[in-house]
Amino acid sequence: MTQTVLVFLDRALPDGRIEDAAKPQLFATDLGATRGDGVFETLLVLDGHVRKLPAHLSRMQHSAQVLELEVPGHEAWERAIVTALDEYQRVVGPLTEVVVKLVATRGVEGVHEATCWVAASAPAPAAKRQREEGIDVLLLDRGYDSDVAERAPWLLLGAKTLSYAVNMAALRHAHAHGADDVIFTSSDGQVLEGPTSTVLLAHADTDDAGHVTLKRLVTPRLDSGILPGTSQGALFAAAKEAGWELGYGPLEPEDLFDAEAVWLISSVRLLTPVNRIDGKAVGTDPALARALTEELSALFDKIA
Amino acid sequence: MTQTVLVFLDRALPDGRIEDAAKPQLFATDLGATRGDGVFETLLVLDGHVRKLPAHLSRMQHSAQVLELEVPGHEAWERAIVTALDEYQRVVGPLTEVVVKLVATRGVEGVHEATCWVAASAPAPAAKRQREEGIDVLLLDRGYDSDVAERAPWLLLGAKTLSYAVNMAALRHAHAHGADDVIFTSSDGQVLEGPTSTVLLAHADTDDAGHVTLKRLVTPRLDSGILPGTSQGALFAAAKEAGWELGYGPLEPEDLFDAEAVWLISSVRLLTPVNRIDGKAVGTDPALARALTEELSALFDKIA
Repeated sequence: MTQTVLVFLDRALPDGRIEDAAKPQLFATDLGATRGDGVFETLLVLDGHVRKLPAHLSRMQHSAQVLELEVPGHEAWERAIVTALDEYQRVVGPLTEVVVKLVATRGVEGVHEATCWVAASAPAPAAKRQREEGIDVLLLDRGYDSDVAERAPWLLLGAKTLSYAVNMAALRHAHAHGADDVIFTSSDGQVLEGPTSTVLLAHADTDDAGHVTLKRLVTPRLDSGILPGTSQGALFAAAKEAGWELGYGPLEPEDLFDAEAVWLISSVRLLTPVNRIDGKAVGTDPALARALTEELSALFDKIA
Repeated sequence: MTQTVLVFLDRALPDGRIEDAAKPQLFATDLGATRGDGVFETLLVLDGHVRKLPAHLSRMQHSAQVLELEVPGHEAWERAIVTALDEYQRVVGPLTEVVVKLVATRGVEGVHEATCWVAASAPAPAAKRQREEGIDVLLLDRGYDSDVAERAPWLLLGAKTLSYAVNMAALRHAHAHGADDVIFTSSDGQVLEGPTSTVLLAHADTDDAGHVTLKRLVTPRLDSGILPGTSQGALFAAAKEAGWELGYGPLEPEDLFDAEAVWLISSVRLLTPVNRIDGKAVGTDPALARALTEELSALFDKIA
């Protein structure tokens, strides 16, 4: 078991309340545990710096709003994160690479107050390997059409809720079929997102001498019921600065196979190249794909 | 806060381990709390008798199987339920009407053993009132088509998982719009189920003297991605014995309005009449609807 540092948000303690993660800390009647009713964010700390903190806090506030869940403001979370990282340094080790999870549940049944905590732990070793070696993914139908989010707000699409059983089942399905991850498609055939990541693809034009003359970074359209990726948003901004063209879907599976490179991107696993989709190789020019990955990774590394 | 009696399933204690529900009992890294990853059942105890126990235990085993989650066998659950009810009598009161919840989560991250507990508490007072007065419901799109369950098993349709955030959001949406509950429809226009109940409707033919000559009880087709209702199953068996014809969908919203009576049925709330759907009255003969409700309620009351 990974060592976890745990800090609860607490009205009485503005810096949060440190608790022992090796002891029970949640009530069995907490609606987070009995109904998956709550929201969360997963952040990466690199060399002591919390990456994209404002974007994560904003997205959590948005998720909470979609769920009509009242959660503490940014400052309370920021202070609890500082407490958690101080404690992590004290009891676990340096803040070279730390995963910080923010969780807010609807609270204990009948109490009507969110249960909120920050958990800091080491990243899973698989992330680094997957980033370096790339991954194989399966395309899986998520059952929803790409317009349902607007039509049916009660489906909570675009909110990062604790109800992740389907995402976990999709990953199990992929592992059972020899793949590492999943790209969900909509029932009307559009590329959506990964269970815990955003899909990116790149096109590049080269001149006769093999020099890249145009680079285009594309992600599925943001209004198709997917989670707006904090990593995608930050990388898009950096890529634009660096001269990339940007594009938003709709994307179909065919577009993934026509791309020079495809990645899954997330806060913890960062930019992870997709080698094969449904067993079929992605891209036709491995050297170009590697160059694009290196360029984007370098841009992404510099993001605050 | 309702008083809850809590019994954890425990390899070392075949009758289960009684814990204080007023104290924290779950780890913050339990995948039930962080991913809604687990299964549950809600049972009703009436006058000391646990209703439909084998049906609930079988359905939970099925749900766990769909989630590839290993949970203890029936006997362990049965013994923990007995312990919980004994303790309930001792510390709360008589077993006149008690709600028993069975929960199995995927357990603490990295431990690979389900966290399993039984929670016993008094039913919410609203259930009785709704049963007597009936409820208003909204039809809400659940986003999935009625064939997706078979096509995409990773969506976990037909398993009762802890990832209930969407069900809770749909109920909030109904309450915000002046209704009590929801009937979900599929994206291809079929009637599915309630967020925590099964839909039933009845047709009746009467002769010139007003005597009922045919009674037909209908529920949506069971392979449309809905949860097989333990109450629906038990009531159908009893109704057949009592001379009712039985029918299974596909049903469309129009069929609900054409029915003599519509109900939501569940283990705790029992048979609850639907008065209005999207603001429109159900049925044309209130006396006949009442008679059908009384007859089915009497049948349902006798179920073991």
